[in-house]
Amino acid sequence: MKKLYELLKEEGRAKRGVFHTVHGDIQTPVFMNVGTVAAIKGAVSTEDLEQIKCQVELSNTYHLHVRTGDKLIKEMGGLHKFMSWNRPILTDSGGFQVFSLAGLRKIKEEGVYFHSHIDGAKIFMGPEESMQIQSNLGSTIAMGFDECAPALAERPYVEASVARTTRWLERCKKEMNRLNSLEDTVNKNQMLFGINQGAIYADIRIDHAKRISELDLDGYAVGGLAVGETHEEMYYILDETVPYLPRKKPTYLMGVGTPANILEGVDRGIDFFDCVYPSRNGRHGHVYTNQGKINLFNQKYEKDMRPIEEGCQCPACRRYSRAYIRHLLKAKEMLGMRLCVLHNLYFYNTMMEEIRDALDAGNFRSYKEEKLYNMGQIDREKEMSGQKKFH
Amino acid sequence: MKKLYELLKEEGRAKRGVFHTVHGDIQTPVFMNVGTVAAIKGAVSTEDLEQIKCQVELSNTYHLHVRTGDKLIKEMGGLHKFMSWNRPILTDSGGFQVFSLAGLRKIKEEGVYFHSHIDGAKIFMGPEESMQIQSNLGSTIAMGFDECAPALAERPYVEASVARTTRWLERCKKEMNRLNSLEDTVNKNQMLFGINQGAIYADIRIDHAKRISELDLDGYAVGGLAVGETHEEMYYILDETVPYLPRKKPTYLMGVGTPANILEGVDRGIDFFDCVYPSRNGRHGHVYTNQGKINLFNQKYEKDMRPIEEGCQCPACRRYSRAYIRHLLKAKEMLGMRLCVLHNLYFYNTMMEEIRDALDAGNFRSYKEEKLYNMGQIDREKEMSGQKKFH
Ligand SMILES: [Zn+2]
Ligand SMILES: [Zn+2]
Repeated sequence: MKKLYELLKEEGRAKRGVFHTVHGDIQTPVFMNVGTVAAIKGAVSTEDLEQIKCQVELSNTYHLHVRTGDKLIKEMGGLHKFMSWNRPILTDSGGFQVFSLAGLRKIKEEGVYFHSHIDGAKIFMGPEESMQIQSNLGSTIAMGFDECAPALAERPYVEASVARTTRWLERCKKEMNRLNSLEDTVNKNQMLFGINQGAIYADIRIDHAKRISELDLDGYAVGGLAVGETHEEMYYILDETVPYLPRKKPTYLMGVGTPANILEGVDRGIDFFDCVYPSRNGRHGHVYTNQGKINLFNQKYEKDMRPIEEGCQCPACRRYSRAYIRHLLKAKEMLGMRLCVLHNLYFYNTMMEEIRDALDAGNFRSYKEEKLYNMGQIDREKEMSGQKKFH
Repeated sequence: MKKLYELLKEEGRAKRGVFHTVHGDIQTPVFMNVGTVAAIKGAVSTEDLEQIKCQVELSNTYHLHVRTGDKLIKEMGGLHKFMSWNRPILTDSGGFQVFSLAGLRKIKEEGVYFHSHIDGAKIFMGPEESMQIQSNLGSTIAMGFDECAPALAERPYVEASVARTTRWLERCKKEMNRLNSLEDTVNKNQMLFGINQGAIYADIRIDHAKRISELDLDGYAVGGLAVGETHEEMYYILDETVPYLPRKKPTYLMGVGTPANILEGVDRGIDFFDCVYPSRNGRHGHVYTNQGKINLFNQKYEKDMRPIEEGCQCPACRRYSRAYIRHLLKAKEMLGMRLCVLHNLYFYNTMMEEIRDALDAGNFRSYKEEKLYNMGQIDREKEMSGQKKFH
C-alpha cells in the first residue's frame, strides 16, 4: 500500500513532506485557508483560492451543521461539490465551536449537550455525531471529536478531560471506519486525524500523545494551544510533545498563528497550520508585508500609490495601490476588505512556499532568521520614532 | 475632424451607435455600471468589470469630493489611474446627490449651499465647482450641473428651476472649455453632456431640449425621471422630448432602470443608461433571469444545484449553484452578495449586447417583444399559483 505521507527532507526537527489524498497532493508545510461556512470571509470564492496558492480549505463542521445542514449538503453531493472546490478540504470536529460559541452546555461521557448559537435549539454532539456530520460533508480529512479545555485549567480537570478525549477518539475511529464502509458515503476514503490535548502540562501532553499514536490514525494535531497561554509556553509544549507524535505522519498545529509562530512551528516539526488572522486582519485593513504588518487606515498611506507589497503577485498588488485600498476601507466598501484578505492569504500561502523551498534547499534555518529579522523592521521603526518623540 | 458619435443603424427611433472617446470606443446602446465611490458595491473590482462586459464605469462626483477628495485624486493622476480602469468613465455632476443626500440647503443663482452628509461641513457647489471637481477626477464624460426638481413639483417652480439650469449649463460649458485648456488638466479632452429637465411638463421639457441643443455639447441626458412618476409618464416624456435632442449625438436616460424600462428607452432613441438596480438587487439576493427576477432567499432554491441562469457565462453561474449562493446569503457571507451582483451586472451588460446585435440585424422590435414576454414568465407563474391558492 502506498504511503499517504512521504517525508521528503528534514532539517533539525523541521519536516518537508507530501501528503497524498483522494483530492490531490498536499505539499507540506502548508497553511490551510479558513472558510468557516464553506466560504472565506471577505467575499473570497473557491475560484479566488485557486489564484492565491491555497492547497487546503478548512471548513467548520459546527457552522455547517447548524446552517444549511450536513444532511442537505450530502444530498447535494458533499461539500466539494457544494462549494465547487476539488482540492483537499479539512473539517474540524465541531468541538472547538461547541465549547466556545454554544450557550449552556453539559459535558457527559457520551458527548456534549448544548444550545445552538443561532436559534437556541437543543443539540447533542458526541464522537459518533461528529463523525457522521463530517462524513456527510465528505471532507478529505476529518478531525477527532475532542474537548478543548481552557489553557489555564486546573490539573485535575485537564487529566479527566484528556482521558475522556482519548476514549472519544477510539469511538471516532470505530465510527469513521463504519461510515467509510457504507454504500452511500460521499468520500469512502475520508481520513481521520487525532488531536493531542493537555493544556500546558507537558507530562499530560506526552502521555496523551503516546496513547493516541497507538491508534495508528492518518495524522495528528496539537490542539488547545494559542488559546491564552504565552508564545513561550506554546513553543515549550511543542518542544516537549511533538517528538511523541509519529514523525512519518502529518502533524497539525491547530489555530496557529502569526507568521513568526508558523516559522517556529515548522522548526518544531509541524506540517499543517490554520488560522483566522490573515482574513480577520485583512477585514480590518491590517496587511502583511515582508517588513512587518501595516495598518492601511493610517493617514500616511493616503497618497501612497505603491502596492501593499512591491513585487507581490496577488490580485490586490498586481493592480491596486495602498491609497486606493485605503480609500475603499474608509468608505466601508466591501472591495477594500476583499483586496486585503486576498493579499494576506496570498502572503501566508507564499511564505509556506518559501519555507518549502528553503527546506528543499537545506537552508530553512537561515531563511527563518532572515524572515523574522525583516518582518520586525516596521516594529523597530515604530520603536525608533517613538523614541524620537519622547526624548 | 472625426465625429465623436456615429449613428450606425436605426430602427424606428431606436439608435445603434458608436461613441469615440480618448479612453476607447463605446458601443451603444450601453448600460453604465455604477461605482459610487470609485468602487462597485458588492466587492466588485475594475478587474471584475473587465470580465463582465462593462464598457463604461460611472462614478459619483459628490461622494468622491467629500471622501478622499478630488484634489487628492488629481494629485495621484486622476480617477482612471486611482481605480485602475483605462476604459471610459462618466461622472455625474454632483447635483443629484446634493439635492437628495445633503441636509439643509439653499439654492441661489450662483449655486447651492449645503452641508456634507458625512461631517456636516458647509459646502458650496455651483456650475464652476462641479466642473472643477470633475476636471480634477479627469473622467471621460462630465455631466452639466443641474437642479433635479421633484417629479411632482408645481409648474412655476419647475419653470424657474429649468431656466436656472439652462444658465448653469452655459456656465458649465465655459468653465469646462477653460479647464480643458489648462496645462495641468488630467484629461484635456474631457467631454460635457447637458441635462434636460422639466419634470413631467412636456412643453417645458421640449423648450428646454431646444435651448440646450443650441449649446452644441458632446451629448445630452434626460434627467429627473424615474424619481416618482409612473412608467407611463416617463415613456410619454421620452416620446415628447427625445425628438428635440440632437439625434446624431448620444442620448442618456439617467438613473433608468428595469430591463423593461431599458428596452422601452432604446425604442425611444436612448443610447446610455445607468441604474443601481442590478447591484442593489444583487446585494439583497434578487437576481435576474431571462424568465424574470427570482429571490434566492426563497426556500425552494435550498437544494437547487442549477446556476442562477442556465448557460450564463458570468463568474457566478460558471461555477456556483443557486443552493450554494442561497446558503451564503443566509449566512450573511459577503461572497453571496458579490456573486449576485456579478451575475446581475453581467445580465444587464449582456442584454445590451443582445440589443445591439438585434439592431445590427434589424430585428430589435421582435427581440424586444420576445424578451419582454419571456421576462414576464415568473410573474405570470406567481399570479397563476396565487389563483390556485385562492380559488
Ligand atoms: Zn499582495
Ligand atoms: Zn450568471
